Amino acid sequence: MNIIQKLNNRIDEVSSLLCIGLDSELKKIPVYLHAEQYPQYIFNKAIIDATHTLVCAYKPNIAFYEERGEKGMKELKMTMDYLRTKYPEIITICDAKRADIGNTNKGYVAHIFDYLGFDAVTLHPYLGKEALQPFLDRKDKASIILCKTSNPGSGEFQNLVVGKQMMYEQVAMHVSKEWNRNDNCMLVVGATYPEEMKKIRSIVGTMPFLVPGIGAQGGDIQKTVSAGMDKDTRGMIINSARSIIFASAGTDFAKRAKEEATNLRTTINKFRFVK
Amino acid sequence: MNIIQKLNNRIDEVSSLLCIGLDSELKKIPVYLHAEQYPQYIFNKAIIDATHTLVCAYKPNIAFYEERGEKGMKELKMTMDYLRTKYPEIITICDAKRADIGNTNKGYVAHIFDYLGFDAVTLHPYLGKEALQPFLDRKDKASIILCKTSNPGSGEFQNLVVGKQMMYEQVAMHVSKEWNRNDNCMLVVGATYPEEMKKIRSIVGTMPFLVPGIGAQGGDIQKTVSAGMDKDTRGMIINSARSIIFASAGTDFAKRAKEEATNLRTTINKFRFVK
Repeated sequence: MNIIQKLNNRIDEVSSLLCIGLDSELKKIPVYLHAEQYPQYIFNKAIIDATHTLVCAYKPNIAFYEERGEKGMKELKMTMDYLRTKYPEIITICDAKRADIGNTNKGYVAHIFDYLGFDAVTLHPYLGKEALQPFLDRKDKASIILCKTSNPGSGEFQNLVVGKQMMYEQVAMHVSKEWNRNDNCMLVVGATYPEEMKKIRSIVGTMPFLVPGIGAQGGDIQKTVSAGMDKDTRGMIINSARSIIFASAGTDFAKRAKEEATNLRTTINKFRFVK
Repeated sequence: MNIIQKLNNRIDEVSSLLCIGLDSELKKIPVYLHAEQYPQYIFNKAIIDATHTLVCAYKPNIAFYEERGEKGMKELKMTMDYLRTKYPEIITICDAKRADIGNTNKGYVAHIFDYLGFDAVTLHPYLGKEALQPFLDRKDKASIILCKTSNPGSGEFQNLVVGKQMMYEQVAMHVSKEWNRNDNCMLVVGATYPEEMKKIRSIVGTMPFLVPGIGAQGGDIQKTVSAGMDKDTRGMIINSARSIIFASAGTDFAKRAKEEATNLRTTINKFRFVK
């Protein structure tokens, strides 16, 4: 199935734009789990079991697994095998921010889409469409292109003026008009820049945004929902990681994660369905 | 030691700008090696032992290891352990084209610089300097920023006009003026664009270029050397992968790689020291 369709089905089914970031950095997960053979996996499994009815997507950032070498990568694979078997209707996003030229990307495609089995991956736009074709050609997967990122210094290149637009608007335009032939593209748009988000929404129609930057990074939920929602009250995958998964450092971490996720989903929906 | 200094020492010691790309894709290495427990490592070790006197650097593209999951990553680690122990004076570049925001990069820094032990890594510029600070802060390592890449479609964003310059010139200028406080930055500049390379050289002084794109991709060696060399006949790490490491598919692959590497180094030096 087309991943955008799968996403929309899931958003409607659980009435949620919430994505939980499985950024399960070893040193931040509860200390008592460190004695486990697979601590990151055990942690993820507990979070997933506690929160799966509340989310449209899960998004591990691969850096937090790669930093442990083969061990971490094995636990990411175990996490994905669990997710795909038990909750196949939930969107899985590999936040890897990859992009190489041409055939080299086939290694990443094989690793992220086929070996790990993710539905979607985040990608840098700088090399252009021609370079990213191996990702874009995968009709059964989705490519999520960095457009306007949530970090404070994202304007250094993204806000450079190109003609009458800024660089990030150029990216939105190119992706929307040229890259999306298979209806499998989305954009990363940070919650910390609602004005820019509004502009991007006006450029790309209903193309979904992956939205980092609420919570710890300071993005405002009401402004974000108002700026980014599409005409069908969808169009956004709103990610939250630390404030949910690390809500407690004790044995109640999964229970507390569920509470935080419940509250956040409720808050998002309040602004989503406001009259 | 500062990595640029290490690079210049090595270039002078072996009189070579040549870098061999260890893009040791499993299905392309000699079939008889597939029976080995660690085929990519055995292949790399033979290539390295045969060519080490001819090169300033080795550059594995991590995608060709990642695509095999934990197995490939283990063999990349074994390759790096071998290189660092036996030939510590040779520059090691992880062609990973990474870049995330802020602290997330610490995972990549830990993995690529500390766990795998590379001297340098390739990085996307799109998120800006503020995001890449964890890489730039490593005075003992080098960051190699994508500036003008070798692929046919690299102009889509890189050649967009920003004021009186193109995007890639903006990247060169920012990296040269703002990012390079620790004298640990280099740029990726493709051999397929000698005119652009000349412009970049005029912007960045002696900052070294990592140069992909000769050989299979069609870049001309004479034009490349003429466009990219700095005032001290250095300033370039010229990468060649497939035409060297896959020169033969038989048991003579290392011997043939040495011949190809010898020829390429000689050709580069002919144009490098032309009067």
